[in-house]
Amino acid sequence: MPNAILLISCPDKRGITAAVTNFVYDNNGNIVHVEQHIDDQINTFFMRIEWSLEGFKIKREEITRDFSRIAEKFSMKWDLYFTDVLPKTAIFVSKRLHCLYDLLLRYKEGQLACEIALVVSNHPDAGKVAKEFGISFHEFSITSDNKHEQEKKELEVLKKLGIELVILARYHQILSENFVNEYSDKIINIHHSFLPAFPGKDPYAKAYGKGVKIIGATSHYVTKDLDEGPIIEQGTVRISHKDTLAELIRNGEDLEKLVLSRAVLWHLERKVLRYGNKTVVFD
Amino acid sequence: MPNAILLISCPDKRGITAAVTNFVYDNNGNIVHVEQHIDDQINTFFMRIEWSLEGFKIKREEITRDFSRIAEKFSMKWDLYFTDVLPKTAIFVSKRLHCLYDLLLRYKEGQLACEIALVVSNHPDAGKVAKEFGISFHEFSITSDNKHEQEKKELEVLKKLGIELVILARYHQILSENFVNEYSDKIINIHHSFLPAFPGKDPYAKAYGKGVKIIGATSHYVTKDLDEGPIIEQGTVRISHKDTLAELIRNGEDLEKLVLSRAVLWHLERKVLRYGNKTVVFD
Amino acid sequence: MPNAILLISCPDKRGITAAVTNFVYDNNGNIVHVEQHIDDQINTFFMRIEWSLEGFKIKREEITRDFSRIAEKFSMKWDLYFTDVLPKTAIFVSKRLHCLYDLLLRYKEGQLACEIALVVSNHPDAGKVAKEFGISFHEFSITSDNKHEQEKKELEVLKKLGIELVILARYHQILSENFVNEYSDKIINIHHSFLPAFPGKDPYAKAYGKGVKIIGATSHYVTKDLDEGPIIEQGTVRISHKDTLAELIRNGEDLEKLVLSRAVLWHLERKVLRYGNKTVVFD
Amino acid sequence: MPNAILLISCPDKRGITAAVTNFVYDNNGNIVHVEQHIDDQINTFFMRIEWSLEGFKIKREEITRDFSRIAEKFSMKWDLYFTDVLPKTAIFVSKRLHCLYDLLLRYKEGQLACEIALVVSNHPDAGKVAKEFGISFHEFSITSDNKHEQEKKELEVLKKLGIELVILARYHQILSENFVNEYSDKIINIHHSFLPAFPGKDPYAKAYGKGVKIIGATSHYVTKDLDEGPIIEQGTVRISHKDTLAELIRNGEDLEKLVLSRAVLWHLERKVLRYGNKTVVFD
Repeated sequence: MPNAILLISCPDKRGITAAVTNFVYDNNGNIVHVEQHIDDQINTFFMRIEWSLEGFKIKREEITRDFSRIAEKFSMKWDLYFTDVLPKTAIFVSKRLHCLYDLLLRYKEGQLACEIALVVSNHPDAGKVAKEFGISFHEFSITSDNKHEQEKKELEVLKKLGIELVILARYHQILSENFVNEYSDKIINIHHSFLPAFPGKDPYAKAYGKGVKIIGATSHYVTKDLDEGPIIEQGTVRISHKDTLAELIRNGEDLEKLVLSRAVLWHLERKVLRYGNKTVVFD
Repeated sequence: MPNAILLISCPDKRGITAAVTNFVYDNNGNIVHVEQHIDDQINTFFMRIEWSLEGFKIKREEITRDFSRIAEKFSMKWDLYFTDVLPKTAIFVSKRLHCLYDLLLRYKEGQLACEIALVVSNHPDAGKVAKEFGISFHEFSITSDNKHEQEKKELEVLKKLGIELVILARYHQILSENFVNEYSDKIINIHHSFLPAFPGKDPYAKAYGKGVKIIGATSHYVTKDLDEGPIIEQGTVRISHKDTLAELIRNGEDLEKLVLSRAVLWHLERKVLRYGNKTVVFD
Repeated sequence: MPNAILLISCPDKRGITAAVTNFVYDNNGNIVHVEQHIDDQINTFFMRIEWSLEGFKIKREEITRDFSRIAEKFSMKWDLYFTDVLPKTAIFVSKRLHCLYDLLLRYKEGQLACEIALVVSNHPDAGKVAKEFGISFHEFSITSDNKHEQEKKELEVLKKLGIELVILARYHQILSENFVNEYSDKIINIHHSFLPAFPGKDPYAKAYGKGVKIIGATSHYVTKDLDEGPIIEQGTVRISHKDTLAELIRNGEDLEKLVLSRAVLWHLERKVLRYGNKTVVFD
Repeated sequence: MPNAILLISCPDKRGITAAVTNFVYDNNGNIVHVEQHIDDQINTFFMRIEWSLEGFKIKREEITRDFSRIAEKFSMKWDLYFTDVLPKTAIFVSKRLHCLYDLLLRYKEGQLACEIALVVSNHPDAGKVAKEFGISFHEFSITSDNKHEQEKKELEVLKKLGIELVILARYHQILSENFVNEYSDKIINIHHSFLPAFPGKDPYAKAYGKGVKIIGATSHYVTKDLDEGPIIEQGTVRISHKDTLAELIRNGEDLEKLVLSRAVLWHLERKVLRYGNKTVVFD
């Protein structure tokens, strides 16, 4: 039997925790996880509750309707998920394929609670990798002239396949605002620096030039502002003057794989709540 | 107004979360934090709930009585704390004083929710430090002959002062089983290795001899079995062949301060639950 | 033009550095890297020197003969390498294939200065992966009865192919002393714990049972004593009570890949010097 | 007997290593450490060589003269140090005293190869701490009006005492260009962020606002450009949404102590070479 998960945010007030746990308990649900967080500065309450549907008295298709009464009372923003519903996912990639390989190997191992339905690239290189893993591949080469048109085609493919999550696994094209709006809070990017340091192009070369002693990687939701979206996960690794730019990149790419895969894993386990330009990660 | 904190463990079963949150909510308490954990392997439920006493309908001296009904129903082991009750604490130390200094500086900064009432040592060196910070100091020199007798005197002093927590901040005497039993789950030790590696004497020299590339420190509750008690916190730091034993020790001692102070902080914030030989840390 | 590398150890004495650097300089070599280390406790000197063969007056096949005079004078143990000679390498693996994949992907990227000539396993699973990367695969199933015989066959294959380095990338068979002696200091293992903690079988389950707050991985040269050989590299990662055994393993396996690949990389770059049961790593 | 240390940088060319090591060896010096680094991008050679003066044939006051011949030949920038000459050091601090305490405790333990001769502050608070450790204290309150004048007085005190190193241990005044020029490469600052992220004021509040998952600290030489000088050392530590700003600061300040003390230690051990806006740290 699957579990149900509610992700909730609302103005903080007495009685929210009790109301939500009672909703589950009174309907004979067995709570497996419950976590909450209060941001005092903005008086906002966040909650993640996961319970087993075994013996739960409300049918799954009626949970939304029944929970709405509580949600309205507390002016909640909320989402309901079921652990047996695997979101269809597309991976976008350019020429560096280490993150793609990493995600596909984790997928094959059963680590990622999704269905990877598609690999998209602006170059042909990833096609062979997608094929090895039995995943569909679409190439959309992008130029300054055809970008608008190609994105439109991409969106058509995504919609047709019912894609619900887009992972930018070192995809070196800036998505237009229109594309981003279509997948609000549903595009996860890996940026190869410790943001907000070194946004934009060539962060490794910038880090090398600056002489930093630690480099980083950042996974975040994509918004219309480049490399400015809500951060989900970051990692850092020490380097030294002995590291050439190539060695710095090798160490950085190892980190990218870890950081991106953790962000994706947590998103898929419904542990990430975005608010404003920040995230709560109930890891 | 202070907060109340309940630390609970019991056999896992439906309805615990709802029962506890309702107890708080129905009596007009405002829940500030709630965290729970289930250990599937032993079917045990753990919970930490913290609520504001502002407007809470039950008087603080009656909470124990009123909560007992719920506790009994679920066969809970539980403890109730109030954030304005600061446990009296003694720090035991031998000749290395870095952890003592670190704790006293944090105490002075207001980081530690306790009252440090006493410094105990088997050497005179710590006396000067204790004095600088205005803390009482007792020296109990220990030999193989007088140990039993001295521990008895130590316990008398601790009892007289109402000490509720003993911190072994590099105290190089093994406490007898009798002493440990008097302060069960209330003695926190720092061991200067990554346990279970290098228990017992001279862990840094052992680590150096073994040629490890990373050293560690471990803070744990003291049990009758030397360096075997439930681990609260650990830390590690990279070393290399270039580090002499002295440099290894310097790096290790920096780590000890961080690891011990975190363990103490969490214990005092009532975030640590011991079970069997493990801990849940709701950090 | 390739570089030459000398790895040297000898009793510490005045004049070693000058003698070696003069040997290179007087013969018109351009020193690219030089690092030395002295272990005071055992009065031993270690050195790694790398120089460009461009314009070097001694023919590469005569360097050994010419350097021997200096080596003898200082009673050196030494090895000479050339960066264009790629050692033939075999990877041994059992059922967990994450380290194998990781090494082969790095190999494909050109990160590893070797020729991976062979994958060996006691199970068939790795065959498909080896094939994807175009590497020969040999299955030698091992039972308590046939072990001696199978190892003999394995050694024959290794010898025939001229294998100079064996990587145990989660190979769950204990190599016999005879096998180990044939490849002294040329077998690199990954053990999935922070040695000397949790040697032997099932280290993750042991770590989980112990309740440690950090887990580790260790890469070391294989000696006849199980999990006791000289450590090349270690890594650690934080876990918490929230991590199930499966999550602990997932985090640990990510670490294994990093730790093993770094050890292999450094070995192949001739940066590792073994002495006694320790290593100097000129990283 | 003390050691001599040479820190050298020059255009890369054949024969530098041999020339320097021969200089030491031919004069009967025993090399204890030698490290070199070549930055290919700017064709620059860096070297640190340390040798025992026991039996060294050149008198220490004549080493400079004798070495100059080699230095000129290779157009070296170089500095000569002796391990028994302890540079006089001043610590500048404002209201947060954790780094001051940390440095003074390390000093008392004998970790820092300097003579701390002075504590300077724009507030009176540090006076008591300086006194505890028996160090002179000068208060120079700074306003926008008196800054120029006060800095002049500070410089007079520094000069009179022969101060050779200034440590800004959370000193919240921007030094004027004139002051910085007087102590070029001899002022070490701790900035409480992972530079180049969050330069300037209130980096912890900025990090909290941005929702980063890791915070950092950076120690660097001070130049006329605020928070832009060559980085000596950096450190990072994980945080989460659960950390309040106060907890973020507490974790950050623990890090500052480690990062600043390492930078100071390495500087005093003459392991740091500045070049352009970067450093080589022969740690």
